[in-house]
Amino acid sequence: MITDIKSYLHECAALIEKSLPEALPADWNIPQQLRESMLYSLQAGGKRLRPALVLAAAEAIHGSAAAASHALPVACAIEYIHTYSLIHDDLPAMDNDDYRRGKLTNHKVFGEAMAILAGDALLTHAFYLIPKAARLGGVNAEVALDIVEDLAMLSGARGMVGGQAADMQGEQGTTSIEELEYIHLHKTSDLIVFSVTAGGRIGGATAEQLDALRHYGRNIGLAFQIQDDILDLIGDEKKLGKKTNSDVEQQKVTYPYLLGIEESKAQVKRLTREAKAAILEAQLAAPDKLLLIADYLVQRDY
Amino acid sequence: MITDIKSYLHECAALIEKSLPEALPADWNIPQQLRESMLYSLQAGGKRLRPALVLAAAEAIHGSAAAASHALPVACAIEYIHTYSLIHDDLPAMDNDDYRRGKLTNHKVFGEAMAILAGDALLTHAFYLIPKAARLGGVNAEVALDIVEDLAMLSGARGMVGGQAADMQGEQGTTSIEELEYIHLHKTSDLIVFSVTAGGRIGGATAEQLDALRHYGRNIGLAFQIQDDILDLIGDEKKLGKKTNSDVEQQKVTYPYLLGIEESKAQVKRLTREAKAAILEAQLAAPDKLLLIADYLVQRDY
Repeated sequence: MITDIKSYLHECAALIEKSLPEALPADWNIPQQLRESMLYSLQAGGKRLRPALVLAAAEAIHGSAAAASHALPVACAIEYIHTYSLIHDDLPAMDNDDYRRGKLTNHKVFGEAMAILAGDALLTHAFYLIPKAARLGGVNAEVALDIVEDLAMLSGARGMVGGQAADMQGEQGTTSIEELEYIHLHKTSDLIVFSVTAGGRIGGATAEQLDALRHYGRNIGLAFQIQDDILDLIGDEKKLGKKTNSDVEQQKVTYPYLLGIEESKAQVKRLTREAKAAILEAQLAAPDKLLLIADYLVQRDY
Repeated sequence: MITDIKSYLHECAALIEKSLPEALPADWNIPQQLRESMLYSLQAGGKRLRPALVLAAAEAIHGSAAAASHALPVACAIEYIHTYSLIHDDLPAMDNDDYRRGKLTNHKVFGEAMAILAGDALLTHAFYLIPKAARLGGVNAEVALDIVEDLAMLSGARGMVGGQAADMQGEQGTTSIEELEYIHLHKTSDLIVFSVTAGGRIGGATAEQLDALRHYGRNIGLAFQIQDDILDLIGDEKKLGKKTNSDVEQQKVTYPYLLGIEESKAQVKRLTREAKAAILEAQLAAPDKLLLIADYLVQRDY
């Protein structure tokens, strides 16, 4: 089954890789360097997990793959948001990273000013893609507007940007487990919650189903992040494609640091179990992929 | 009449000053430094011209002030966008400004990382405010979605951010009059076009009226920017609240530099005349304020 979900995620990733550059209209008069800078980071690889969750959730609720095809512009939108956040996080004033996934970071190639602008443009373009989903059909205006509101809430000041700000503040002093949870819930879970609820809305989810998807997203997001912290501590450099133990070098407070490795692993299991329970209780039309993704995320070795 | 429009703009500015902090929900759990950084720049003064144009255009099309009250969240949204753009423009990697309107710039107070995040959060929150306009009533979902699309297009890669990117590239070499027009059309006119068309949409504008508003916005935006270049060259330091002749010091290419002062002044007059002609031809319900604002913008001495 895990092999199946792996190939499903690969298929989704291939579809998204193709769709991301196409989502930026070729006939728009955009300064050349800005366009190149945006496309450089959009095409820099990655698991494309968030867009896959949009597509999987739409199909899980609706029961057919047609719902997933209607959700494609929104799947691209969340990857635009994720990409902008990586560009801005890598800036010298933030994490000051020269490499990401083995490639030079955006500002190392295009300069800081262009990297800031490319991030701003990618963020903004995500909101262009949601009305586009409504224009292409299969998504009505009210649903599209709910998705705009969710995206703004979950990626903004009380969402992802809030998590990033708390993370920056946390680096200046001691971090409690509550603060660490705030950071992970907002830096990581919020975009995952967006992905599954946006897909769910397009698939026609009821209020109860949306609640279940929120619960699922929150928990797999946290589990994913704790697993990341664990892998950072014990993982293999080659598989992760970045230097491990970098959190320790940067004196970052992590779950393993606060709770120990064993308790962190237990948390990952508990969160994954709860995520799957929420999906099972909500009786979705086709829950299998969401269930398998929850397991896959914490079994991954990359 | 100009006295009247001056007091109208002051009234709008007062309403917006009050509404901007309220538009960021007090009960949202936002890291304290991030909230302070956002509010610092939102409350740093300014003419509040763009939101006033949203309100004035809604009233011009609809003929009643009720339409303007429905447009208030969208008026705040455009000021959130304008504010984020100033924070990011002032960053060391961009224009590297320590002061704006006599106050320390955001990154001088909160640090570069927080300034980048505050900009990202303000940008994102603008898109939260548009669905809010629909929830509050008076704006239907289709209209709100059109406004989301316009905002993303006019403030993103082929809009304001594109203008800023072209400006950064332009600083590295020679700039032609065509390049300068691209920069001003996108850095300045696009948000003004957004403001009047968004107000117009809320007021119930026809496609022809929206075209007239676009033409008006494009022309007063360009006129405003050329007038700014002229004032920078000849203006009085105290009135402008910033060092004049700074463009010359920074070797920035401007309209007066390319065309001379007299020809630049003639352009301002021509653009203002054409803006007003577009409004007059479109036979709006209450065109007076838009006509007066066009004149006022180029007679201002601040």
